[in-house]
Amino acid sequence: MRKTNRRQVLQFGAALGGGLAARGEETGKLGKPLSGYGERSPFVKSVRATRQSKTPEAGSSSTPLADMYGIITPSSLHYERHHSGVPALDPARHRLTIHGLVERPLMLTMDEIRRLPSVSRIHFLECGGNSGGEWGAKTAPDVQRAYGLASCSEWTGVPLSLLLREVGVKPDASWMIAEGADACHMQRSVPLGNDLDEALLAYGQNGEPLRPEQGFPLRLLTPGWEGNVQVKWLQRLHVTNQPYMARDETSKYSDLMPDGKARIFTLVAEAKSVVTFPSGGQTLAGPGLFELTGLAWSGRGRIERVEVTLDGGHTWQDAQLQEPRFRKAFTRFRLPWQWDGKPAVIASRCTDETGYVQPTREELIAVRGTNSGYHFNGIKVWKVDAGGSVTNADA
Amino acid sequence: MRKTNRRQVLQFGAALGGGLAARGEETGKLGKPLSGYGERSPFVKSVRATRQSKTPEAGSSSTPLADMYGIITPSSLHYERHHSGVPALDPARHRLTIHGLVERPLMLTMDEIRRLPSVSRIHFLECGGNSGGEWGAKTAPDVQRAYGLASCSEWTGVPLSLLLREVGVKPDASWMIAEGADACHMQRSVPLGNDLDEALLAYGQNGEPLRPEQGFPLRLLTPGWEGNVQVKWLQRLHVTNQPYMARDETSKYSDLMPDGKARIFTLVAEAKSVVTFPSGGQTLAGPGLFELTGLAWSGRGRIERVEVTLDGGHTWQDAQLQEPRFRKAFTRFRLPWQWDGKPAVIASRCTDETGYVQPTREELIAVRGTNSGYHFNGIKVWKVDAGGSVTNADA
Repeated sequence: MRKTNRRQVLQFGAALGGGLAARGEETGKLGKPLSGYGERSPFVKSVRATRQSKTPEAGSSSTPLADMYGIITPSSLHYERHHSGVPALDPARHRLTIHGLVERPLMLTMDEIRRLPSVSRIHFLECGGNSGGEWGAKTAPDVQRAYGLASCSEWTGVPLSLLLREVGVKPDASWMIAEGADACHMQRSVPLGNDLDEALLAYGQNGEPLRPEQGFPLRLLTPGWEGNVQVKWLQRLHVTNQPYMARDETSKYSDLMPDGKARIFTLVAEAKSVVTFPSGGQTLAGPGLFELTGLAWSGRGRIERVEVTLDGGHTWQDAQLQEPRFRKAFTRFRLPWQWDGKPAVIASRCTDETGYVQPTREELIAVRGTNSGYHFNGIKVWKVDAGGSVTNADA
Repeated sequence: MRKTNRRQVLQFGAALGGGLAARGEETGKLGKPLSGYGERSPFVKSVRATRQSKTPEAGSSSTPLADMYGIITPSSLHYERHHSGVPALDPARHRLTIHGLVERPLMLTMDEIRRLPSVSRIHFLECGGNSGGEWGAKTAPDVQRAYGLASCSEWTGVPLSLLLREVGVKPDASWMIAEGADACHMQRSVPLGNDLDEALLAYGQNGEPLRPEQGFPLRLLTPGWEGNVQVKWLQRLHVTNQPYMARDETSKYSDLMPDGKARIFTLVAEAKSVVTFPSGGQTLAGPGLFELTGLAWSGRGRIERVEVTLDGGHTWQDAQLQEPRFRKAFTRFRLPWQWDGKPAVIASRCTDETGYVQPTREELIAVRGTNSGYHFNGIKVWKVDAGGSVTNADA
């Protein structure tokens, strides 16, 4: 930990001269009894922000990133992105079928899947459309609505590779089509290969069964890839020798470039970071010590460095990274910050283990234009004014 | 991962001859819309087991360990142990006072505490009375009620060491008395020293604010020590030169030895493990491949090894340990297990980074007798009969 100047704290803690001052609340009566399944304090009110839509079954809701601690997102606040609502699946009736270009097609019950060797890992999930508003003029005023289609959980499941070995993928196979059991039977084409070494058929999330909004009872997890390909309510893997060109990989989640051509199957979430405190919509109580903090992640592996600027990019300093840092997971960064009460222009810039450095918005636009609403990972700038109000510099 | 024999899986997966068999459920209608704060599937029903008590405000409830995946315990299922119920504290009114043998006594609001440099770490918590029934004849039939007063979370907070430096602990200080804001003003004496290097004043749990049952808005976290000393609803740290000999460190949480003397301040949770599948109350569906799994933890650091016996201790084999392994956190262990349909006697034995090996129940009793209901960490044995029923071998 960085050394903190002793006076920084005492500036705002109430020094107690003699004896013990009155404490906050004095409660003399018994509190609530034991309970079977706990709930939040009524004083804690963070909720997902639901994006306005005429069809709330086909929309998204975002994690309140500014209210989060550490790297685990509570499952109740994990972002949502649904295309035909959240099905209420009975795990006793749910089946996973693996067929197509395989030697031994197979259908498994959930009980059978849970008997197989499993692993648990902490990974982020991010919608390919997260922070898409940053490409243009639609950016939101706060970090939840601008960046909240990203969350991080401990996932448990069976390695996909184990089941692909079991069914015996034929030599001419090169793709598999993952299909969900939601009303639209959401489909995505998944390229076979070494990139799937970390893929799971996940049934556990943060210690308990997957939440319905994240695919209960089973989802595909391809760590580091955009969320849409990690098909929820997974009922089928059809092994093929070509992609399906499904709706969600052609009309959506593709990048229309300045020359009119579209990049498709741009699956990997490139390195990205965002400051969550201070961030848009917050107000600093006054000059003094604060802990600046935020999150960084990369679909290519570990985050190696996060730099922070307080002066709009003129100077940068290294933030502290919370250890241990996991591959393809949120990394929490922090920086003790002595605010002098003057306007500040704040941003973070991360570097992942491949050496990739998070680009500026301008650098991204120079290459990719502004036709696309997907896969934005540019540096995010917040402005603090002399009164302590924080706003989205790009809004 | 260990190599799994291909036939093991195909034994129970349904092979699909030609074409695609009927899948489980076919849903044609839109599912549930987006929501602000998610809930579990109605098909998931695990709850904490509440221990019978005339006063439910002074009791305990246990985590359903057999239903858990990975190492994170969902906050809603974290074990509880309260002495006068769960107070409903308003964080805007809560204060932490640090006084006594210090140079600069201090009172802090929650807003002030959250401005300080913080860290996040994954640690277990275990009640000093967990599995206390194993000393005698009171052991419960299943792992939840026998071992469920242990849970594991990602905690976020301010290092205690930072605030002790700020207030300036005087040279003659050797203890501090931590006091909660619950109705009984729960107090425990905490020895000052290097053992507190990892201690936190924690306000975050699994990404969100502490749950009320775990001390919202602030608790003391002394990783690796028994839960009772990690005082919840923390409102006061009184630095002293001796312990208070409070009720919960004399009449309770002490070990009455065979010679009639009591060990007190036995704070460290020694290395312990338990198999959660198969465990008491479960039934195996029939011979074939299963994943044997369980949890291990040590208050002295990392778990280095977990061995499993299937034959009542005649032979032992190493289980796989989920990586990364954290200091003073749950470590998930797993072992692919081909059950032949014959009776089995199953147990786990862990070793921590200090070289300490989890003892048998008999070895513990030989030293400590059976007067105490606290600090049991012996090897736990489950019996599987030919019908697949699993029972507590010590019940």
